[in-house]
Amino acid sequence: MKIRELGEFGLLEELSRVVKEAGVGQGPDLLLGIGDDASAWLGLGRVELLTTDILVEGVHFDLKTMSWRELGWKSLAVNLSDIAAMGGQPSQAVISLGLPEDVEVEQVLELYQGMIGLAKEFNLLLSGGDLTASPMVIISPTVAGYGKEGQLLTRSGARPGQLIGVTGYLGSAAAGLQMLREGLEFDPEITLYLRQAHLHPVPRIAEAQKLVQEGIRVAIDVSDGLVADLRHICQASGVEAEVEAENLPVHPLVRSAFGEASLRLALAGGEDYELIFVGEEEKIQRVRQQMSTPVSIVGRILPGEAGKVKVLHQGSSLGELESGWEHFKSGKATWSC
Amino acid sequence: MKIRELGEFGLLEELSRVVKEAGVGQGPDLLLGIGDDASAWLGLGRVELLTTDILVEGVHFDLKTMSWRELGWKSLAVNLSDIAAMGGQPSQAVISLGLPEDVEVEQVLELYQGMIGLAKEFNLLLSGGDLTASPMVIISPTVAGYGKEGQLLTRSGARPGQLIGVTGYLGSAAAGLQMLREGLEFDPEITLYLRQAHLHPVPRIAEAQKLVQEGIRVAIDVSDGLVADLRHICQASGVEAEVEAENLPVHPLVRSAFGEASLRLALAGGEDYELIFVGEEEKIQRVRQQMSTPVSIVGRILPGEAGKVKVLHQGSSLGELESGWEHFKSGKATWSC
Repeated sequence: MKIRELGEFGLLEELSRVVKEAGVGQGPDLLLGIGDDASAWLGLGRVELLTTDILVEGVHFDLKTMSWRELGWKSLAVNLSDIAAMGGQPSQAVISLGLPEDVEVEQVLELYQGMIGLAKEFNLLLSGGDLTASPMVIISPTVAGYGKEGQLLTRSGARPGQLIGVTGYLGSAAAGLQMLREGLEFDPEITLYLRQAHLHPVPRIAEAQKLVQEGIRVAIDVSDGLVADLRHICQASGVEAEVEAENLPVHPLVRSAFGEASLRLALAGGEDYELIFVGEEEKIQRVRQQMSTPVSIVGRILPGEAGKVKVLHQGSSLGELESGWEHFKSGKATWSC
Repeated sequence: MKIRELGEFGLLEELSRVVKEAGVGQGPDLLLGIGDDASAWLGLGRVELLTTDILVEGVHFDLKTMSWRELGWKSLAVNLSDIAAMGGQPSQAVISLGLPEDVEVEQVLELYQGMIGLAKEFNLLLSGGDLTASPMVIISPTVAGYGKEGQLLTRSGARPGQLIGVTGYLGSAAAGLQMLREGLEFDPEITLYLRQAHLHPVPRIAEAQKLVQEGIRVAIDVSDGLVADLRHICQASGVEAEVEAENLPVHPLVRSAFGEASLRLALAGGEDYELIFVGEEEKIQRVRQQMSTPVSIVGRILPGEAGKVKVLHQGSSLGELESGWEHFKSGKATWSC
């Protein structure tokens, strides 16, 4: 069978299975292996986190619509978002780079300036990496971080009766991608907002710390889209979820630019790198009072079919939406999760 | 300036400089940043190590001359070799994979079986990663490990009067690469040995532990070739080195197959993933007595020009050899360091 037939998630399941069967996928100190936002193991006195991504020119990004500096920021930001989704703090990053030999030195330095900007803002050290020749630009950052035992945010543990919260706005990054790809023109305020939303995601490290402090223990970051990422939580937790479309946080500028289409962007658009989290209503209310980042309650956890996500719109069900984006199964370019 | 004009090491220096200037390349706990075999920082009670590689089909490997399982073993083994070169023990690996969509699921599972074989042998957990679509196969493993404070092997600290030791044999992997590339035919014993040397390197984790126990503190693994890698030690330590060609450990099967050309393979051929280390003669003798892996003394450290490596052959100098392989500056395919 070709991997495009099995799909990304199917292949991941297969790999997870063989690794576990071989006994190298679990150990006494390994808290989370293949299948969460980052791996987590019990170090001395704290939980060590490790997360990696691989981003390929022409598949995940296009240097015609973004600068090298923006590429540097974003490629590292999405990894910090995975650390945030675990409730962790980032510490170090090592960067593997594949570069065509006719790239300008100045362009590589710009790429690094983007990463340096992020590193400064989030107290991250750039401590090493690997450079190689390659037919196209490839970036594979790995970020190490840490958290506290018993205070991680994971995909499992959501229980019926709990509510679903989201930080910030949904669909803005996908709206930005659509604008850049299709050359859509809006007024300068909208253009700037959409461009930033797509190219300059801000990892929710501080917000995740607040969630942890208030006793939230279930979260994921929005890389594939609300429905797809919420489905990961529901699968890992063995529960069903119900989302109310009216309560989705759509930014006013996105609504004014995309009208009715905003709803679809908010449900299925990826790469917002906001946090979806699950907890009791009073905890979510306390979280909301403590951060300047907006927090919305978008739905609830139900008993029922594990992994199912229902979307209600004006009281009736929208049915099952497409499952967000999977590598291999689609030609659609996006950033990896 | 194009990066092919500046070269890999020149670009690395530039990146190291901007990262340091920005203040994100050093911190109170960071022991080693850009420029050694792995990054090292002071964790709670131990030193944490992190190393990464990026391997691109057509640049670093060719699936016509190696199996998917061999590719899995080797791509992870070279990272474990970097942990060995720091005197560390590996703990976890995360694997970023880029795969064309028409790859067979069975091939990806074979790739993982190669990595699983290595993980079992070296007590490594495969704890996560990332999968994405890509026009060619890309593998970017990151390995985390740990060592003890004050007991790391680094590139700096070599002093005049110390001797240069090497584990195992040199040039065998390059001989194997030449055989596979040029379709050379030898008798079955030689063919098997050369194939294994190139495709199945065994990271010197246990040997590195013995070096550390006997008080050795300077080492590097042979990825670019003896002269090129020894030059890294000499640059980092501000010393010169002298190598005696007669003392290079060339395997008898390589000598019988390649004759006089073996010398060049041993001096400039990369990818043996043996350890080059520096220390006092009595320490090297104690190390030699304690391991079944052969240990050779191949030269000595001298005062003089920082970074210079002289090769003596039958009493006279061979002069400066080419500096081993640099990405971008050469079209020669190899594995990255």
